[in-house]
Amino acid sequence: MENGHGGSKHRVAVIGSGNWGSVASRLLASNTAKLPSFYDEVRMWVFEETLPTGEKLSECINRANENCKYLPGIKLGTNVIADPDLESAVKDADMLVFVTPHQFVEGICKKLVGKLRPGVQAISLIKGMEVKMEGPCMISKLISDTLGINCCVLMGANIANEIAVEKFSEATIGYREDKEAASRWAKLFTTPYFLVSVVEDIEGVELCGTLKNIVAIAAGLVDGLDMGNNTKAAIMRIGLREMRAFSKLLFPSVRDNTFFESCGVADLITTCLGGRNRRVAEAFARNGGKRSFDELEAEMLHGQKLQGVSTAREVYEVLTYRGWQELFPLLSTVHEICIGQLPPTSIVEYKYWRD
Amino acid sequence: MENGHGGSKHRVAVIGSGNWGSVASRLLASNTAKLPSFYDEVRMWVFEETLPTGEKLSECINRANENCKYLPGIKLGTNVIADPDLESAVKDADMLVFVTPHQFVEGICKKLVGKLRPGVQAISLIKGMEVKMEGPCMISKLISDTLGINCCVLMGANIANEIAVEKFSEATIGYREDKEAASRWAKLFTTPYFLVSVVEDIEGVELCGTLKNIVAIAAGLVDGLDMGNNTKAAIMRIGLREMRAFSKLLFPSVRDNTFFESCGVADLITTCLGGRNRRVAEAFARNGGKRSFDELEAEMLHGQKLQGVSTAREVYEVLTYRGWQELFPLLSTVHEICIGQLPPTSIVEYKYWRD
Repeated sequence: MENGHGGSKHRVAVIGSGNWGSVASRLLASNTAKLPSFYDEVRMWVFEETLPTGEKLSECINRANENCKYLPGIKLGTNVIADPDLESAVKDADMLVFVTPHQFVEGICKKLVGKLRPGVQAISLIKGMEVKMEGPCMISKLISDTLGINCCVLMGANIANEIAVEKFSEATIGYREDKEAASRWAKLFTTPYFLVSVVEDIEGVELCGTLKNIVAIAAGLVDGLDMGNNTKAAIMRIGLREMRAFSKLLFPSVRDNTFFESCGVADLITTCLGGRNRRVAEAFARNGGKRSFDELEAEMLHGQKLQGVSTAREVYEVLTYRGWQELFPLLSTVHEICIGQLPPTSIVEYKYWRD
Repeated sequence: MENGHGGSKHRVAVIGSGNWGSVASRLLASNTAKLPSFYDEVRMWVFEETLPTGEKLSECINRANENCKYLPGIKLGTNVIADPDLESAVKDADMLVFVTPHQFVEGICKKLVGKLRPGVQAISLIKGMEVKMEGPCMISKLISDTLGINCCVLMGANIANEIAVEKFSEATIGYREDKEAASRWAKLFTTPYFLVSVVEDIEGVELCGTLKNIVAIAAGLVDGLDMGNNTKAAIMRIGLREMRAFSKLLFPSVRDNTFFESCGVADLITTCLGGRNRRVAEAFARNGGKRSFDELEAEMLHGQKLQGVSTAREVYEVLTYRGWQELFPLLSTVHEICIGQLPPTSIVEYKYWRD
């Protein structure tokens, strides 16, 4: 495993092959092909499915060098190899990239217990959390605890399709203690069009990526109410402030500076400008709250789920359990609007805010 | 001057009657009419002009209770009195609101020397600065120094026409030492649809309002290059970071928290979503930089000037004089693009950024 550069040579596997997983594999493969400290091959675990043509998704990816279903038209790099067998995909890797829907993480990790190489490092690109009564369990912690490995996170203003066509973008890696591992991940992800910063604040980075979806719901409501840019900017600012305050209450180690990184203000902006949470919330407000989020989601997203609505519910549970609702009027109000307890217009009722 | 509430009763005058000046007068007048510690009347100094109908602007305002030219269709409140005579407009006031184009401030202040009541307080709603070799002289300082009075600032995501129709919005008041004066201003400006926060960081607040116009030029260039939301969010974030770093280098007292206020991130968002700096910069990039900002400005803005271009030039002078150009690649690059030294695409050339 020694290479000619005085260090060990690393092998990367990606767990997940959706839209973002495919773009991430492409990004990583462009670097592993160039950098001597990594093996060229990037193995990508594919949750197998049969395409309408009858071909298997993994076969199609390996034949066409494209994710025919989730990222058609983009060559992944010939060193990306799709593998429908989870154990086989990860068995030689010492760097694991998790990029699946968040509800699958726990099951995947359980399958991997005892199957990984010693000293393996992980990074999570997954935005979401598991809420327990005592507070949210971040996905990186779930991975870390289940597998007994170190896990960084990568978050940022990262609309996958824009990165696929190499439009300039940034991201933030959050780590806990192991700066060397974080720097290696940064080296592996950074390209001329994809700049990566590294910060020692894993909870801050991950909570940014997760909580911003709630603010995007609020921003979408404002759009649907035709309130204009002042109001939208005000709501985004209040949202950012509550994200910061909530993160710091949960984890006193969270740093203010993290919210100035790509994972913070930039991801919030992207998500509140475009994004499906914003879009469905806009439709919800235009319908005066008379059609439920579930109904609009089914109609508009063709089976994809809105993370903002479920994250709002999860955060609300934490707020209720800890008696923090009054401290977080925006986060609370979004949930109460989502479940029909308050009308969409409540999002701009000033009585909810205080300094 | 004593009222029945144990304090002195205050009289407000507004210096300026453009679009924002008229909206501010309307906002203030709604409060002076209600609050016992203020005289009802808000006197608004009007830079007199003759309308196409032959009527004087001040006469039209007093007849119709509308600013017929700069805010037609909006009633100002019958307690707003237009006065074309500067000295007469301010002579009884002890609270002066400055809201003129920034290039007129120095001349106006010189005319007012020795003409004000003792103990008069000022607030500036003006976004801009005067650059001298040793650094920018903020407008509030110009007012303060010329007249020997205390001057706060009010900045924020405040598109005037949206506030005119009472859409929910926020603003930030920055003050130096005199918190009581700042709180009185906050009381005078706050309404159910206009929330005002107060922070002891006058330079931070004022620099936010000023520098954000440079970032709006950058955002407009990204729009004109069709780079998408990731890139735009990245540029806005880098811009915010440089605003913060530049402000802190100039004034070490500037606080990080100020950039989380309405004057910071919210105003940046509003300005980068709409606004004329963004719009003209978009046109500039679409033309590949072949038509100058001056030309596009004349064509698109009908005589209004772009603050972003001149602020970029002013900041560039400071950066050059102090040898700080490399520290502020975005602020520098915007100016170099504006003057045709670099192509519009330079705004996303990653080599300009480092961490």
